[in-house]
Parts: sequence; C-alpha cells; structure tokens
Amino acid sequence: MADEKKFVKEITPQSEDFSRWYIDVIRKGDLMDYTPVRGCIVFKPDGFELWERIQEAMDRRFKETGHRNAYFPMLIPESFLQKEKEHVEGFNPELPWVTEAAGEKLEERLALRPTSETMIGHMYSQWIHSHRDLPVLINQWANVFRWEKRTMPFLRTSEFLWQEGHTAHATEGEARQETMQMLEIYREVVEQVLAIPVWKGQKTPSERFAGAVETYSIEAMMKDGKAVQAGTSHYLGENFAKGFDIKFLDRDNQLKYVHTTSWGTSTRLIGSMIMVHGDDRGLALPPRVAPTQVVMIPVGPVKLREKVMERFDPLFDDLQAAGVRVRADLREETPGWKFNEWEMRGVPLRLEIGPRDVDKGEVVLARRDTGEKMAVAIDQAVEKIGELLEEIQENMFQKALSFRNDHSHLHINTLEELKGHITRAEKEAKVAGWVLAGWCGEDACESKVKEETKFTSRNIPFEPPVTKETCIACGQKAQHTVWFSRAY
Amino acid sequence: MADEKKFVKEITPQSEDFSRWYIDVIRKGDLMDYTPVRGCIVFKPDGFELWERIQEAMDRRFKETGHRNAYFPMLIPESFLQKEKEHVEGFNPELPWVTEAAGEKLEERLALRPTSETMIGHMYSQWIHSHRDLPVLINQWANVFRWEKRTMPFLRTSEFLWQEGHTAHATEGEARQETMQMLEIYREVVEQVLAIPVWKGQKTPSERFAGAVETYSIEAMMKDGKAVQAGTSHYLGENFAKGFDIKFLDRDNQLKYVHTTSWGTSTRLIGSMIMVHGDDRGLALPPRVAPTQVVMIPVGPVKLREKVMERFDPLFDDLQAAGVRVRADLREETPGWKFNEWEMRGVPLRLEIGPRDVDKGEVVLARRDTGEKMAVAIDQAVEKIGELLEEIQENMFQKALSFRNDHSHLHINTLEELKGHITRAEKEAKVAGWVLAGWCGEDACESKVKEETKFTSRNIPFEPPVTKETCIACGQKAQHTVWFSRAY
Repeated sequence: MADEKKFVKEITPQSEDFSRWYIDVIRKGDLMDYTPVRGCIVFKPDGFELWERIQEAMDRRFKETGHRNAYFPMLIPESFLQKEKEHVEGFNPELPWVTEAAGEKLEERLALRPTSETMIGHMYSQWIHSHRDLPVLINQWANVFRWEKRTMPFLRTSEFLWQEGHTAHATEGEARQETMQMLEIYREVVEQVLAIPVWKGQKTPSERFAGAVETYSIEAMMKDGKAVQAGTSHYLGENFAKGFDIKFLDRDNQLKYVHTTSWGTSTRLIGSMIMVHGDDRGLALPPRVAPTQVVMIPVGPVKLREKVMERFDPLFDDLQAAGVRVRADLREETPGWKFNEWEMRGVPLRLEIGPRDVDKGEVVLARRDTGEKMAVAIDQAVEKIGELLEEIQENMFQKALSFRNDHSHLHINTLEELKGHITRAEKEAKVAGWVLAGWCGEDACESKVKEETKFTSRNIPFEPPVTKETCIACGQKAQHTVWFSRAY
Repeated sequence: MADEKKFVKEITPQSEDFSRWYIDVIRKGDLMDYTPVRGCIVFKPDGFELWERIQEAMDRRFKETGHRNAYFPMLIPESFLQKEKEHVEGFNPELPWVTEAAGEKLEERLALRPTSETMIGHMYSQWIHSHRDLPVLINQWANVFRWEKRTMPFLRTSEFLWQEGHTAHATEGEARQETMQMLEIYREVVEQVLAIPVWKGQKTPSERFAGAVETYSIEAMMKDGKAVQAGTSHYLGENFAKGFDIKFLDRDNQLKYVHTTSWGTSTRLIGSMIMVHGDDRGLALPPRVAPTQVVMIPVGPVKLREKVMERFDPLFDDLQAAGVRVRADLREETPGWKFNEWEMRGVPLRLEIGPRDVDKGEVVLARRDTGEKMAVAIDQAVEKIGELLEEIQENMFQKALSFRNDHSHLHINTLEELKGHITRAEKEAKVAGWVLAGWCGEDACESKVKEETKFTSRNIPFEPPVTKETCIACGQKAQHTVWFSRAY
C-alpha cells in the first residue's frame, strides 16, 4: 500500500512538466499500458470504457441521421492507394506493409489501412450505378495504422481506433450539407458528453486531409494551451469519384461522378478529455463518460462498520437501480487513502457514510470538480446525486470554457507581438494559449508563422469572436480570421 | 426491375447445390460483397447489422458476468508466437506478416493476430503479481486474420471479426468454471437470439485449440447436414502462464502460475444462421436479429393509395413507437415483386394494407417462416405483431431443432454402417447429417473415420441422447460418445 500511496503523490505537477503529468495520470489512472510493439498501446478496461461511451454517443447520432455501419477489409492493395495522387503522397510515408502471408511472398504489397477512402471508393464504384442508389451513407468502426515517428498514448499511436464515415451523393450541395451535419454531430458529442468546448471551422489548404477539397474540424484547447484536432469532416468533391470511377446515371440521363465525404473521430478524444479536465490530483472525468460516477466509501471505526453497512448496502442498490454507475470500495485501506485514489482516478462524486452520518440520517458527498463537501439526507441521496452529476457535467464544461477563453488572445496583430507574447509566457512559465490572427490567405505567411513561432493554423472558425483586418505575417488585408497555436 | 426479378428467380435450390444456394442468398440478400483482397469480404450494412445484434446480446452477458472490454495491439512480434510451442505450430502456417513500415524494414516481423493469447499473456505477466490482482476478466472485440486456402463468405475469411475473452484465475477450479460459464452464455445467445439449436460438448484432443488443455464447443447443424463450430471455450491450464511467466503470490505466500481461459465467437455465426434458417425462397432471419422485423407494403390500385396511406402511416409510427424495427416499401414496383424481394431478404413478417382492408378495418400479415397469411383488426395490429414476432422466433428454433433431430443418426455402430449410410444418402441426394458414435479414445480410430468417410468428430456432447458402448472404428469398448459429421 505504501507504494501506491507514493504513486499518488508522484504525479508530476502540470506546471512542472505537462507531458510527464499526462503520462503519470493515464498510467496511474489505469487507462493504458505500453506494449513491446512500437507506438502501440493497450487500452485497459477503464480507458476502453471511455471509448465505449464515446462510441455509444456517436453511433446513436449517426443512426438517427440515416447512417448504417459496415465493415471493409483492413488490407489495402498498393495499387488502390496510388489512384488518388495527393492521398498517396499524404499517407505513404506512414504505412506498414504486409509483404508475405501463409509462407509466401505476396505479388502486391498490402498496406494496413491508414484510412479507407480507397477501399471504400473501389467498392462504391461497384455499388453505385443510378441516382436511385444514392445517397450511400455508411460508417465504419475500425482500427487504423499510421507509423509515425513520435507517439503519445491516445493522442498519436501507431495503431488507433476510430470511426470513419464515408458517404456518396448525387450533388455537391448535398455532400457539403452532409459534411457540415457530421461536423455538428461531432461538436455536440464532444461538448455535451466530453464537456470539451470546441471551435468549429475550416482548415487552411495546407492542413487539409490528403485528397480533400475542404476539411473542416473541431479544435479543442488542452490545459497546456496546445490544440487538439478533435474531429474532422471532409468534403472530397469528385476527387475520389474520379480516382475510382464512381459514376451514376442521373435523372437527366447523364452519367455523372458522385460527390463524396468522409469524417472521423478517434481514440485521441480520450487523450483530449484527460488534458482538458485533469489536474494535479489526477484524472477528472465528466459524469456522462465516467466508468464510475459515484464511489461509496464507508468511514469511521471498523467495529461500527456493521451499523454503517445497514444503510450503505440499500443505498448502493438504490443508486444502481436508478441507473447510476456506482462502485463500493470496501477494501481495507484507510478512507484517506481511498479518497486520494478515487480522486486520482477522476470519479466525479464520492459518497461517505460513517456511524455519525447514520445517526443523523445523512451521507456526505464530495465533488471531484470543485472539492466541495456536503451533507445530504440519506433518503434524498439518490435524487440529489442525479442532480449533482448533471451539475458537475455542466460545471466541467463551463470551467473548460473559461480556461479556453482566458487563454485565447484576440488582440495580437503582428508576428512581433506574437513572438513577444510567446517569450513572455515562457519566461513566466505561463500557458501561451491560442491567438486569433488575420491571414491574407498565402501559404507563405502561414509557413512563416509556423517557422518563427511553432504556432500552426488550427482552423478558420465559422464564428470568430472578433474579425481581424490584417494578416499577422505580412500586414496586408486579411482574407480570414484564423486560430493559431501549438498543437498535438 | 426485370433484371432484379430474374435475380430472385435465380437462387439455386438448396437440393441442387447448397454452396451455390448460400452464395446466391447472401449476395442477393445484400449481406456482403467480395473484394480484390484475397479472402476478404465487405460486411455490407444488412450483414453488419446482424453482427451488431449478436455483439449486443453477447456483450451484455459478458458484462453481467463481470467481464470488461479492452483493446490490445493487432500486431504480434514473431518472438511472442514462439513462446507456446503448440500454439505457434497451430497458427504459423496461416499468418500474414508485416515486414516493413514507414519505408524501413522491421527488425522483427510482426504477425497480424490470428488470436491474442500471446500478446495478452505478455501483458498479463506485467499486470498480475498478487492473488489480489485476480481474477482478470477481459474481453476484446477485434479483427483477426487467418490466411487460409479455401475461403467462404462469413464462414471462413482471411480477415474476420470476433470477440475473444481472456481470463486469468488463481485456481484450476475457478478457471474451469469460467470456461463452462462462457460456453453456456454462447449456447444461450445462439439458441435464444439466433434460434440455432446447439450441442455443448468437449472437443477430442485432435480438434483442440493449439495450446489448450481442453477445448469445449457448441456445434450446430446446417441444412446440408454439415456442422459449424459456432463457439469455443478453452481451458488453457498453465500453458500460457508458463510460456509468458504469469505468476502471482498466493495467500499462502507461494509463487504460482495462473490458470487461464480463452473463448471466442465470430462473424461465422452470421453464416451459420443463414445456413440453418434459409430456404429456396432466400434468407430467413430470426426476429431478434433481423434488421427489419416487419415490412409494410401498400396494395391495391394506385388511385386509392391516398385512402390506404391514411391508415398506413399512423400504423407505421405506432409500430416504430412500440420498438418494432419496421420498414415501409413505397417503391413503384408491383406488390408481388416486393413480396418476393422481402421474402428473399428474410424479413420475418410482411404487412399488407389495401383499400378493402381499410374498409374492413383490417391489415393482412404474412409470416416468412410458415407462409401463413392472416387478417388482423388494425387496432390490434401492434399487439398481434409483437406476439407473432415472438412466435416466429420460437417456431424457427423448433423447426431447426426438428431438422437437426431428423438428421441425427443414433443407431449407427460400425464404420461399415456409416459408409453405407453415407453412400445411401448420396445416391438418394439426401442429407447425411450427423452420426452419434462410440469412440475408444484412440487418435487412430478418429483418423480412420475421417479418412474413410470425411466425417470428423464434432464434440463429445455433455448430454448425449444415447450412450454408445463400442468404438465405431475398432469395436472396442467406447470411452466416449461423439458426434461425427462433415463440417465447415
């Protein structure tokens, strides 16, 4: 036990080293483990359950909007990847290849899918012939591979889990509408379920998905001020339709290319959630995704435990019956040790009952988000807990929103000002955050910002808090107002 | 349309060529498609939805029995596979290998997992130290690869989807109990949800999972009399614990190896369900898994359609509100064409409404399983449909059970009798079915049966309908009563 107590104490403070803090909390929170395969992690049960709840929330909304799930082969023939030029250039450097199987060398190498536009494009070309075959609205839950140099658990791993939607439409308008609809679903799930505020917006051309006409994203701010691209939705135009010859006979008897979209979110959402809500005491999980929403801990002298358990057990059953994900910690450790442990694991609410609480007909509730403790009449506990879980969910979103707003800088207008801001933040060990900047639209200006500050364009928000007039790099008239920041 | 009408007519009769019948119905039923990757198929939405319902039914039961989901890397280092001798011998011939990634040759080849005992064994050795860490009860939903020579959609594909449970226990007794518990869950889901009767039993040593101490299975009879192993549960003893050094400090302060189990079911259940229930008219899907449970079709002259739709639309809404998976077919095709189409797709119930039905306040219901048609008062339709779906589910199970019993031969006692039986069946173009036979326990006798008849041992049923006294091959005293048949 002594060891484990030390573990809890050993979480590196965020202010000291955010990356080490992150690794500490996900390991001590038992969410993942490293494996001997380069960049591949195990999603342990508590980590995987977060993904299951994200899946549930996403999948329901996909189906409500008419999408159905399917499953396509993981292995992609090399020749498929070649069919869309930008696509292969974008993904080729990161691909793992199967070159032999069942004792024989393969005639053509097979890539482990980095994404499935090519395989699905090929199949759609077989399935789509007439306007009556459209739209095709399919999603896939799958593992994907990107053999990247630097990996980070959940945020960037060689193998990760995701969903990828792939749709085909008769018209550009309908495909563009689909792209926006799915981006909005992503925003809704990420804000409402994961309590992470995001900016919806358009990626600049340099940050587009390889092969897309337009890429849209939702972008979230971590507690170190860096950004995570939390979901993307692409309007692919006719690019893949041309590469894979996906044509249909329209009502006007003309043979036309379909317009396709694709959209994805992945297990990096787990990492984002941790970096948005966690603190120096450990994980902090929003009630809607927390594997355990309430942990019940009996307190007081062991010789009075029986008396406590007489109230403890029925309350546990009542909470479970009310659909609360409740867990009882009846281990031998001290209450204090358990409090630390469950705080570290991010459980939103702790419930304590001791002999004196029983006498008073009360229980004590402690919130992970605010640290607040309160006594509640035992016969009102179930109702109160339901309310508190909602309140915590909302409060966690509001806290994240305040943090984001506090670290979003709207009045930096030149590269010099930006550099000064970054230098100041570094000197004072403060979070540099995001900067809203004007951009003339030239790649060169975007590159200049990146080279000189490591800030990259996140997206061009649909509804920027202010509109910028001049390009941060060249001072010319701005065409766009863009979020810039460091990013994962 | 003419084309599609022809398609329906073109289902090869089961009696003519069962394999061709199978391919016809899964393609025309839109469940799958072939791909250019050898032995890999697309699970199309209607096929994948069957898998989603199986997943739902399994996953709920896994969780109710204390298991949690996790996710382990798909790529397995070659050295891991070497650690359990029988295991590597069993799987090595079927493995695809990643040999290069991101432009570089890998130092060690990585196999695409055929199953995950080795990767999970390695991780468990890191996680398990004390008796307090036990039991570990983890399941994984994943894609797996077995590069086999002969493939068949759903039943045997190079890539398939499955769940694999992996548990570790302090004692042999507990591990054996787990093995049996999971086998019983498989039986329950396959019988109650897929309406497929199965025999629970033990595999003979020659048919054991590579590396297991004991393998248990549920075995189902297809309509061509062949068997499908529909699920397996393995007691692995200390084999993998020794290979991967999974030890724990027990209460008695002794360092001991854990006892592990593994158990799996896969997308081959989809294929089994089709081969158990389908007929010459096409698919027949049990209501509990059918993507569409009721298809509603308006009939009668188009000029009276409006009158029909006044009753049609509210009934559709009522059924949906009652949780029935209902679909309306309002296409322009003739009712007769639609009837064929939905019969072919295996929808359990068809609902027709025409103008005369409206006058009488009735609807007509037609059952896929019996062909029976009945008029039902429209205001009782929702209730009646709920009852009928239950009835159809039960009837499909009973039909499959009768078929199985009719083709299970209990009184064949010698190899000569078995050969005679098979020859007779072939001559009369009848289903040879299964044979319950005595077995002395010698591998040589089991092999002899296989070589001379192509009948392989399926399992040693826990509760055989009769007990056999002598070995079918050598005539010596039987140690076991075994199901033999041809198998997929």
